Amino acid sequence: MSNNSTYKTWKERLHSIIYEADTPAGKLFDIILLILIVLSIVCVMIESVKGLPTNIYVLLYYAEWIITIFFTLEYITRIISIKKSSSYIFSFYGLIDLLSTLPLYLSFFITGTSALLAVRALRLLRVFRILKISRYIGESNKLTKAIKDSRAKILVFLFAVLVLCIIMGTVMYIIEGENSGFKSIPISVYWCIVTLTTVGYGDIAPVTPLGQFIAAIIMIMGYGIIAVPTGIVSAEYAHHEDKKIHLNTQACSHCNETMHPDDAKFCHKCGEDLRNE
Amino acid sequence: MSNNSTYKTWKERLHSIIYEADTPAGKLFDIILLILIVLSIVCVMIESVKGLPTNIYVLLYYAEWIITIFFTLEYITRIISIKKSSSYIFSFYGLIDLLSTLPLYLSFFITGTSALLAVRALRLLRVFRILKISRYIGESNKLTKAIKDSRAKILVFLFAVLVLCIIMGTVMYIIEGENSGFKSIPISVYWCIVTLTTVGYGDIAPVTPLGQFIAAIIMIMGYGIIAVPTGIVSAEYAHHEDKKIHLNTQACSHCNETMHPDDAKFCHKCGEDLRNE
Amino acid sequence: MSNNSTYKTWKERLHSIIYEADTPAGKLFDIILLILIVLSIVCVMIESVKGLPTNIYVLLYYAEWIITIFFTLEYITRIISIKKSSSYIFSFYGLIDLLSTLPLYLSFFITGTSALLAVRALRLLRVFRILKISRYIGESNKLTKAIKDSRAKILVFLFAVLVLCIIMGTVMYIIEGENSGFKSIPISVYWCIVTLTTVGYGDIAPVTPLGQFIAAIIMIMGYGIIAVPTGIVSAEYAHHEDKKIHLNTQACSHCNETMHPDDAKFCHKCGEDLRNE
Amino acid sequence: MSNNSTYKTWKERLHSIIYEADTPAGKLFDIILLILIVLSIVCVMIESVKGLPTNIYVLLYYAEWIITIFFTLEYITRIISIKKSSSYIFSFYGLIDLLSTLPLYLSFFITGTSALLAVRALRLLRVFRILKISRYIGESNKLTKAIKDSRAKILVFLFAVLVLCIIMGTVMYIIEGENSGFKSIPISVYWCIVTLTTVGYGDIAPVTPLGQFIAAIIMIMGYGIIAVPTGIVSAEYAHHEDKKIHLNTQACSHCNETMHPDDAKFCHKCGEDLRNE
Repeated sequence: MSNNSTYKTWKERLHSIIYEADTPAGKLFDIILLILIVLSIVCVMIESVKGLPTNIYVLLYYAEWIITIFFTLEYITRIISIKKSSSYIFSFYGLIDLLSTLPLYLSFFITGTSALLAVRALRLLRVFRILKISRYIGESNKLTKAIKDSRAKILVFLFAVLVLCIIMGTVMYIIEGENSGFKSIPISVYWCIVTLTTVGYGDIAPVTPLGQFIAAIIMIMGYGIIAVPTGIVSAEYAHHEDKKIHLNTQACSHCNETMHPDDAKFCHKCGEDLRNE
Repeated sequence: MSNNSTYKTWKERLHSIIYEADTPAGKLFDIILLILIVLSIVCVMIESVKGLPTNIYVLLYYAEWIITIFFTLEYITRIISIKKSSSYIFSFYGLIDLLSTLPLYLSFFITGTSALLAVRALRLLRVFRILKISRYIGESNKLTKAIKDSRAKILVFLFAVLVLCIIMGTVMYIIEGENSGFKSIPISVYWCIVTLTTVGYGDIAPVTPLGQFIAAIIMIMGYGIIAVPTGIVSAEYAHHEDKKIHLNTQACSHCNETMHPDDAKFCHKCGEDLRNE
Repeated sequence: MSNNSTYKTWKERLHSIIYEADTPAGKLFDIILLILIVLSIVCVMIESVKGLPTNIYVLLYYAEWIITIFFTLEYITRIISIKKSSSYIFSFYGLIDLLSTLPLYLSFFITGTSALLAVRALRLLRVFRILKISRYIGESNKLTKAIKDSRAKILVFLFAVLVLCIIMGTVMYIIEGENSGFKSIPISVYWCIVTLTTVGYGDIAPVTPLGQFIAAIIMIMGYGIIAVPTGIVSAEYAHHEDKKIHLNTQACSHCNETMHPDDAKFCHKCGEDLRNE
Repeated sequence: MSNNSTYKTWKERLHSIIYEADTPAGKLFDIILLILIVLSIVCVMIESVKGLPTNIYVLLYYAEWIITIFFTLEYITRIISIKKSSSYIFSFYGLIDLLSTLPLYLSFFITGTSALLAVRALRLLRVFRILKISRYIGESNKLTKAIKDSRAKILVFLFAVLVLCIIMGTVMYIIEGENSGFKSIPISVYWCIVTLTTVGYGDIAPVTPLGQFIAAIIMIMGYGIIAVPTGIVSAEYAHHEDKKIHLNTQACSHCNETMHPDDAKFCHKCGEDLRNE
């Protein structure tokens, strides 16, 4: 074979390591990546804590730079190893990967951006790819489907809840006046959401008898209303049959499409030959 | 045709713009209306916030008057464009539309009524009419039906909860005495509702060991009891079949009835010809 | 017929008025009774509020005595009008009726007992008898059955929750020490129940990082655990078919058994003739 | 028969008393054991309360020692009476039994370990063995199975919730700054979990308008998200058929396997003859 063919093979091998998790090398890469993601999140978190010894902050500073440089290299490799790089760059993970490296570089110019590094938490969702070899991703797919199917219903429900909160919030603002915490309508609506969702901070609480009476009604409504989204998801979830789950993580080296059947020979999206990987 | 016929056509055209959302003009009208409703609610909300620059309050004052005048004109047009005006005036939306314009006019005579403008939030429910062209309203209908069918059961449930709260509230009043927050039986019952619904403000909390023990029992009861309405709605919702959904928003120009099949030629309620619209 | 027969008829007529709600007189009696029950509860509640004008307390004092005397007369009439009086006296409602009159008489001798009058709230459950003519009682029966069937499962669940709370409460007591609110193991267990049931008063809250970490775990557990009783009741409730509901309120004048079919001629429990009422 | 055989019978009789609950002696032993477990937990709890009279602490000290010695004897007897002692020692209950006696002995050497005695609460789970003769354990088995089957789904769900909390916690940390309670990212994540699970202590609460707006979104998300685990368990639970329940508590005297059918003659795990017990 020509040199070009060897080069292609090298690129494709890299692709299967970075994007797939079926080979030992691919799995190892993903596990190292996940450990680094967790480490970087822990770093960002600890850094925000005040009053620790100074050398810890210095240590965290170096750790973060090392991780960020690794992430940058990984990002570049991902772009190189794929044939149609735009299908990675503008994908969900492509954007997340970019956003998880940029803030530290930007912190040279703008202060405070390093806290945005917590967007790296989203990278943790990659964990599902490694677990794909287990039944977890199947469950997740089924779960996602049930949630997606009941999305419209839940939106209608949340919209009705919001209208209710605006009205009840205004009523409470009029009743409680301004001597208790109900200083303005937006604050009252905020209180109403806090109460209806049964969170109940207690930073704002009604003090007049009539206000407490209406608050009690809102609570009981919230207590009864919670049955609605639960009922929807229950019914929706029960309807879903257990479907065949994709256990391989094979990704097309051209367009990165991942949902290939186990015996697929060509990518069903772009026609790329999957066998020579 | 006679002049009378032309006049009728003009009135009917107006009717189809204001009451229906199938034509581009009708849809545009509804979207503008919704934006104005949202704007007016935002105005009322911001106005209640203290400590903003004075010119903002002046701006809001003018904005509110402009919106109210538009709503008043819309209300009058709705009455004119329908043949049997009483079927609009005394309908749910007719009353809401009236209540959402009156408070500002009343504020000339009585102070404090302008806060009642928040009733405009109810007008937001019109959003479902525009979304009728999507599947949202169908979901809403199905949801409404499930809630309506389980209404009797949920009322029985809420009544039992109320009796429980009155009894446990009195028990806590006797146990905790008056040195903690349990100043009277109504306050204790209010506390009991706050606890049973798992809201838990913390403005009133038991301090005696026996009081805390009974509070713990009430919490666990509340935690278990919440299963009941959820179970009811789940079971009810699962029973409902997906029914045929009305995707058109055609409203009879005589009696305003809206649930016409797509191929309806006459209003099934008053016999009005629907085709010449 | 003999005088004895007339006397029997009078007694039986009284029985059908007091115990049943099918005749206009019986329904009227039940509605008056319910209004008086609600009134007496409102009286007890208002009486516990401090700082009202003195003449209100005087008014409440008289109102309570009038209602109590009426309840006493009703209690005696109930005993007289039934043939086998023990079947009423030792029934659930018989005991409630006694307990709702005694406290006021006892308040002559022991102070503080009048607050126990709130036990009258339990009498409110009689409301279901009047509503029997509607479909409410059917729902309640179905609901009661679903709850009864899932009782064993929910008890097992609550027992496991309690064991979990004792263990986690002790763990938090060891971690948080005594400088925050976790003063003793019982208090810590109480806090754990408050947290797991998502009530969250906030009167006791962890302050150490480790304590907050474990608290977060307890919360997420509580958030997930609540799915269990809900799932049980949902599944149980869905299994129940809508059964034939007893719409009459006919009660045997001998033993007070109420679940007679509409065409019953003799009491299925004691053989008493039901027709001559 | 030889002396060895008599000794074996004595050992086996002991085994059936300690490990099983079908004979009157076995049931009595289990009930005494449970009472002692409850007593010992109550002792540990009361001991942690400050400010009681000194003689109560003395009393508790002796009570705890008596119970611990009894538990120690019981532990030794359990090891002796079973043929293959390792199958008890390294079982769940074997470890719990050891851990519930050790702390008091260790408190001679290390202070503060006696609070660990609360691990005895786990021994309470033995209560299910006595109740085995009722239908409780069957329910528990069915419940356990439903939870076990939905474990993977609930883990996926909890993982997604955690990622959400990390991201929203960081966003709130950036918005709220450090003048309100949001002192560091870990604290903000803790607050986010408190809010999303609808616990809502109120020790940390947003004070800026934007912070309150995002908090409201988190609450509504938490209110909707709770539908997911509930829906999963509901659907899972509904699928389970009522299976045949083991009503006997017969345990193999060799390997302690307990799930024998009522008419079992040999242990299905080790082949031990079950009849000569």
